[in-house]
Amino acid sequence: MTREELYNNIQKKKSFLCVGLDADLTKIPAFLLEFEDPIFEFNKRIIDATKDYCVAYKPNTAFYEALGASGWESLRKTMEYVPKDIFTIADAKRGDIGNTSKLYAKAFFENLSADSVTVAPYMGEDSVKPFMEYPNKWVIVLGLTSNSGAVDFEMQVLHDGTQLFEHVIQKTCAWGTPDNLMFVVGATRPQMLEKVRKIAAEHFLLIPGVGAQGGSLEEVFKYGATKQVGLLVNASRSIIYASSGADFAEKAKQEAKKLQQEMEVLLRTKGLV
Amino acid sequence: MTREELYNNIQKKKSFLCVGLDADLTKIPAFLLEFEDPIFEFNKRIIDATKDYCVAYKPNTAFYEALGASGWESLRKTMEYVPKDIFTIADAKRGDIGNTSKLYAKAFFENLSADSVTVAPYMGEDSVKPFMEYPNKWVIVLGLTSNSGAVDFEMQVLHDGTQLFEHVIQKTCAWGTPDNLMFVVGATRPQMLEKVRKIAAEHFLLIPGVGAQGGSLEEVFKYGATKQVGLLVNASRSIIYASSGADFAEKAKQEAKKLQQEMEVLLRTKGLV
Repeated sequence: MTREELYNNIQKKKSFLCVGLDADLTKIPAFLLEFEDPIFEFNKRIIDATKDYCVAYKPNTAFYEALGASGWESLRKTMEYVPKDIFTIADAKRGDIGNTSKLYAKAFFENLSADSVTVAPYMGEDSVKPFMEYPNKWVIVLGLTSNSGAVDFEMQVLHDGTQLFEHVIQKTCAWGTPDNLMFVVGATRPQMLEKVRKIAAEHFLLIPGVGAQGGSLEEVFKYGATKQVGLLVNASRSIIYASSGADFAEKAKQEAKKLQQEMEVLLRTKGLV
Repeated sequence: MTREELYNNIQKKKSFLCVGLDADLTKIPAFLLEFEDPIFEFNKRIIDATKDYCVAYKPNTAFYEALGASGWESLRKTMEYVPKDIFTIADAKRGDIGNTSKLYAKAFFENLSADSVTVAPYMGEDSVKPFMEYPNKWVIVLGLTSNSGAVDFEMQVLHDGTQLFEHVIQKTCAWGTPDNLMFVVGATRPQMLEKVRKIAAEHFLLIPGVGAQGGSLEEVFKYGATKQVGLLVNASRSIIYASSGADFAEKAKQEAKKLQQEMEVLLRTKGLV
């Protein structure tokens, strides 16, 4: 998917919502366990219920890998089921030496047909670049994550006074463009988005941490929005587990719609729709 | 597997060799493609041929994921086939927020029964610790990797004059012990092992980069060996692709034996066997 197509979808749906498809056998409604592939059944119904309110879906691969080969198959079917005009993010946080990263790119871009994959930057240039070689595919590099451990390394101050995540974003910007590169920046530290925007003024940012993790949508928009919106705000648990009963899809729809409406208000305030 | 068991195996086999099971459909001998599961057939024969000369096997998960669900199944069968007294490393370089890292730990320690998994440290404490909660399982944290991109972030100098990889190793040492924590340190920068040993004096180090990547076994041993050896030196391509013909297993055996013999000489020099 191109940046233009993504931006058009945001305008059309008046939403920059990404729904995290973190399907967990211990959390999905019990009646689904009787289906041959409960994880796929769950995802299918979540997608049907939320697809009018979001512009992206983001399965986190850990949830699927924990189930072995069958989980991987559920993930493949899920990716295939997502409507083609909705951006897909394989939240895999991969990264390895160049030759091996090429294989991860193959796994996610060819085998799973994802539009994008999240990548951990620790190993540097040759671990990130192979993901940039696919036309109209995206690499989403971890910048500043939403978890407590972000202080341990990501926020460390370097000899020149910058923080590691700033250095990562700056350096990575030289390897890609706003047309094939995004960054993960957590909603739990929204003021940091100002710092990020000084380095990556135009790049789309994938923002986890709104919802269950406590980040504020309004603050994220205030500090992070660009002229082309430039934000994909992810919510997982608050949508997909809004109910554990037979009405889970309906409740997920309501939660997604609620977030979409909040986003629409923000977009209108800035004249972006 | 406990540290004592690993050390005993090293003494018994007079080897600290780890064989990287990076099976690639485009590189394995063509006659294997006729089998139902060519990747597993290849690994099985490599394991049969090399098991007397190595103390660990390390499949890199990228090679299996690139094949989708069937690759994941080949990986599971491979892990199951490794003799129980040989240490297994799922080279997955995972790492996510705490709750999600728990699922990766489940995937590799429960589903695949690996003894250890490699973890990327970028996201900090809560991304690493869930892997330490399994008794007799190990987390192998990326310290200084063997690839060219290591200069981009891992070798960056922090405000206190240390390099990022030193800070990562120092900080991580506080989360685990030499009984459940190892580090990846590439053979391509052997002098750096001196720096690592000042921080992690006793921990086992997983050393990639000998063989195809050009690192020297002698230098690695000189700067990295401890009283309990403390090294697992990995070779992948130079062993498993020593021949692309029908004799690939025999050639792999010869290469593994050659490395084992070089290791035995080094171990004897230091009086470790």
